[in-house]
Amino acid sequence: MSSDVSETPVQIDTGTAYGMAAPDFDAELVEVEAGTPTGEMLRRYWHPFGVADDATETPKQVRILGEDLILFRDGQGRAGLVYPRCCHRGTTLYYGKVEATGIRCCYHGWLFDVEGHCLDMPVETDGGQHKERYRQPWYPVHEYHGMLFAYLGPPEHKPVFPTYDIFDDVPDGWHIVADDNNIGLEGDPTPCNWLQTHENVMDPFHVFVLHAGFSGNQFVSEMAAMPDVSWHFTDLGVKSHQDRVLDDGRFFHRVTEVVMPNVRIVATPFVEFEGRATSVAWTLPISRTETKIFTLLKRPIGADRPRAMYNGKIWPDLTEEEHQRFPGDYEAQVGQGAITSHSEERLAGSDRGVSMFRHVFRKQIKTVADGDAPVMTAHYTVRAGNYIGDRDAVIELG
Amino acid sequence: MSSDVSETPVQIDTGTAYGMAAPDFDAELVEVEAGTPTGEMLRRYWHPFGVADDATETPKQVRILGEDLILFRDGQGRAGLVYPRCCHRGTTLYYGKVEATGIRCCYHGWLFDVEGHCLDMPVETDGGQHKERYRQPWYPVHEYHGMLFAYLGPPEHKPVFPTYDIFDDVPDGWHIVADDNNIGLEGDPTPCNWLQTHENVMDPFHVFVLHAGFSGNQFVSEMAAMPDVSWHFTDLGVKSHQDRVLDDGRFFHRVTEVVMPNVRIVATPFVEFEGRATSVAWTLPISRTETKIFTLLKRPIGADRPRAMYNGKIWPDLTEEEHQRFPGDYEAQVGQGAITSHSEERLAGSDRGVSMFRHVFRKQIKTVADGDAPVMTAHYTVRAGNYIGDRDAVIELG
Amino acid sequence: MSSDVSETPVQIDTGTAYGMAAPDFDAELVEVEAGTPTGEMLRRYWHPFGVADDATETPKQVRILGEDLILFRDGQGRAGLVYPRCCHRGTTLYYGKVEATGIRCCYHGWLFDVEGHCLDMPVETDGGQHKERYRQPWYPVHEYHGMLFAYLGPPEHKPVFPTYDIFDDVPDGWHIVADDNNIGLEGDPTPCNWLQTHENVMDPFHVFVLHAGFSGNQFVSEMAAMPDVSWHFTDLGVKSHQDRVLDDGRFFHRVTEVVMPNVRIVATPFVEFEGRATSVAWTLPISRTETKIFTLLKRPIGADRPRAMYNGKIWPDLTEEEHQRFPGDYEAQVGQGAITSHSEERLAGSDRGVSMFRHVFRKQIKTVADGDAPVMTAHYTVRAGNYIGDRDAVIELG
Repeated sequence: MSSDVSETPVQIDTGTAYGMAAPDFDAELVEVEAGTPTGEMLRRYWHPFGVADDATETPKQVRILGEDLILFRDGQGRAGLVYPRCCHRGTTLYYGKVEATGIRCCYHGWLFDVEGHCLDMPVETDGGQHKERYRQPWYPVHEYHGMLFAYLGPPEHKPVFPTYDIFDDVPDGWHIVADDNNIGLEGDPTPCNWLQTHENVMDPFHVFVLHAGFSGNQFVSEMAAMPDVSWHFTDLGVKSHQDRVLDDGRFFHRVTEVVMPNVRIVATPFVEFEGRATSVAWTLPISRTETKIFTLLKRPIGADRPRAMYNGKIWPDLTEEEHQRFPGDYEAQVGQGAITSHSEERLAGSDRGVSMFRHVFRKQIKTVADGDAPVMTAHYTVRAGNYIGDRDAVIELG
Repeated sequence: MSSDVSETPVQIDTGTAYGMAAPDFDAELVEVEAGTPTGEMLRRYWHPFGVADDATETPKQVRILGEDLILFRDGQGRAGLVYPRCCHRGTTLYYGKVEATGIRCCYHGWLFDVEGHCLDMPVETDGGQHKERYRQPWYPVHEYHGMLFAYLGPPEHKPVFPTYDIFDDVPDGWHIVADDNNIGLEGDPTPCNWLQTHENVMDPFHVFVLHAGFSGNQFVSEMAAMPDVSWHFTDLGVKSHQDRVLDDGRFFHRVTEVVMPNVRIVATPFVEFEGRATSVAWTLPISRTETKIFTLLKRPIGADRPRAMYNGKIWPDLTEEEHQRFPGDYEAQVGQGAITSHSEERLAGSDRGVSMFRHVFRKQIKTVADGDAPVMTAHYTVRAGNYIGDRDAVIELG
Repeated sequence: MSSDVSETPVQIDTGTAYGMAAPDFDAELVEVEAGTPTGEMLRRYWHPFGVADDATETPKQVRILGEDLILFRDGQGRAGLVYPRCCHRGTTLYYGKVEATGIRCCYHGWLFDVEGHCLDMPVETDGGQHKERYRQPWYPVHEYHGMLFAYLGPPEHKPVFPTYDIFDDVPDGWHIVADDNNIGLEGDPTPCNWLQTHENVMDPFHVFVLHAGFSGNQFVSEMAAMPDVSWHFTDLGVKSHQDRVLDDGRFFHRVTEVVMPNVRIVATPFVEFEGRATSVAWTLPISRTETKIFTLLKRPIGADRPRAMYNGKIWPDLTEEEHQRFPGDYEAQVGQGAITSHSEERLAGSDRGVSMFRHVFRKQIKTVADGDAPVMTAHYTVRAGNYIGDRDAVIELG
């Protein structure tokens, strides 16, 4: 067997994909499970996972931080969140029967209250003489303005439930809505790591490219111009200032903030309301590859809520080709993969907000790993907003 | 950055799911594959895997104890069960052609009989001068009352095929039916480990809770009352006695038995027939997460067979919400997971039959691992039954 | 507990599947990924992956040798093949916008040309002062008669693109067609390792069994008779001679060849044209378990192309039962499994061509691993063909 000499002697390609290192992710930015440093830090906070109507007499499967749980509401109106496998023989309580005082397993009838106490064992002697020896694992639930929150962390560190000052006062004719729509996805989870979704909040430049230039203007004209951007650490996270001079000469000072670990406070991009933001949202890590945003928002009763439009349609109605031609946050973030490869990132100057968020986030992980308490508060004063008017009058508002 | 002191100082939750150990299963109760101690013990017995009509001239894929095999029936009426990959180049015999003397591979035409002997190699010299050097791996098949059984164990330990005394005599107007319906699942496999399904037979209390109380009475009134239960070791397994005094004063002595390793003899829960059970069933481990029950039963010719009803429907017709409100064995057992977590079990007094079954089962595993023969018999005398009448007259019948 | 003595004492089965070793594959024959010896050898050649119309202004996902890539064609008509993840933040360029000079990422608007140079960074200072520091990984593309080829290997070893002499001259009224139909599968990939598909070319005996005898004659009567077969090493691979005396007394000298590493040159099995083959095909390893054949063929313009028929139908129209009764190459090769088990092969005399192909293939792997150049040529002279006529006149033609 012989061979011609056939390799090109002259020009050698540069920068090809040959020989690239295998991509990898940074576990600290990805893990959410119990026992991981990041998962333990996340477990030091309350997390929303559903709306009040999700807790009924029909047991429902929910997943929070990678943990599968069963949600129900007993006959006394108490929401219960319990480990799915019955502590006796392991049958899921999804098939349990909800009663006045708790949930009863279908297999042998053991009855547990919302805190997992065993109240009845119908096929054991005397209905269970030693019921106190058995406990169904459970988690505390807190309801806040129609949203259900759970605390999955160490009981001795359970914090008071934090409230937000913008919900202290509700104007006449307004109400507070608990929204599990996942920002236009009709409630379906987003199939990627939560941080890809969350750190986007500190990346205001993508609004100019993705939402205004690339896919037509998905929001309103006030948002279309390229802003001057700066970022600032806050006590509990990071905020960005996005400043624009509008066509009518007024100054538009837009402030967006993230609060540890997964709170996002973004004033409406439709600029319906000037002044402080009217909503607070949370990016829930359902698991390390499933994410859902829950939003509490103050709204005029009965007013339609604007939605982002793509080629004149809402997102769920797009064809595959329209997803390619009119991409939005979903495409940009899920398009990074189920878990992005941090090893391949090349952060640039415009990514400073992302870097600052990660810095604070990593600091909390270290704090908890060192045995200290991460940053938090009992009552949060919102800074985010759309502040429009004379420059000097609005620049200090958020 | 600073932080409020916001942890609750007073009441600390107990018994939450935080810090639970990772769940685990007991391999000895789960494994069915060749080379595992349990798989080797199971391979010392004949296992049913289909009904006679499954073996035809069209090759069929079957799975037994985690092994994929091809079933066919040659032109002389012999059922063949062979390794799927042709011993020549590995093409599946699923695409083979069944002939008078065996099955022919589609790729190069090698022909094998039901015992794997190579009978023809059409593209080798002289049709294969050295055919005797090649052998397609196969397993012996035995047909018993229309059910197909296979022996997948070491040839030198192949036992005689065991028969059951209740099938020795068939009354006039009755016949024996080979049923692969998987107890109401229309033949679909149950997606969980076989032992979850099988040990349920030694758990008569679940009948009272799951089948009578929880989901309405799925059987008949005789079965609805809470029984007195006792369990007893037998030569080849375990039996339970479930004793009730019926409303009319008669004594109902119900006996259920399991026979090593996976035989279940349960008298009809519809109590159509008094006296000894009229059926024998086997819980086949298709794989470690797929299970199917095969039943041989003696029945009056033409008589309708009662089926368990849930909310007035048979199981396959239930909606998801009805599965939640009217659960049956499927929900209770599959609801333990594809493989239950034995590490999380908390067996109680009513689970004594399950413990006794596992005790005998583990003993057989150890026996085989030690090089000895597990318990078995050539002809089994059935004890199970619905014995109704005067207490003294029926108590010794099963 | 006691046990009857019930093992059969007399006849012991032989050759059963009990105790078979676990099946395994030969990694050298299977791996295609970068960094593996075989993957590195394959990367020393150009590979077809699509037809010219696949490269458009709508980005398209393609996979070659296990690598996911994005294909597009810029406004100047240049085909681009780039790593999917944008080198900035990792969003897939599948959602990019194709412009005159390249593809622009949807997330932050970075623009890359077909060689990965960064041309614009709209949200960085001055549109990106340091654009030259960033490079999107890419691969060179070559278009040949409407087929797209890529080179995924080390740039310093990029060979000249090899051409085939049969395409140098195209008769009047004929044209060259780039066909991505995957030989009758309507373009769908074949779900098995590529070598199972490819080495079949050196196995002419299966034609006699599978295509002529087993499933009816899928081709034409000239192909149905059993040929005399011989195999011969060539400079770049292996060829087989399949010689038959036709019913009319003419001698049919059919030559088929494989060229390193994955070229297959097979004259039409419908014997429409006598003389040298009119097509060249490549078996692309899409991944280690996905395969697709791309074919360049010279044809009379407008002439219908014959297709293999099974029970009077084309392959995609067959029912499951017809797939069993009328199997073709798909069933025989996919029926070996997603990756065949080489440990279970028993090659026989008729498999000599397969052995010879593997011998040359392994030699190239060793050559590249040793730092030398594998066999190749800049211009290939095709030998394959259907040569029919007087024996002495045709026997030396291919």
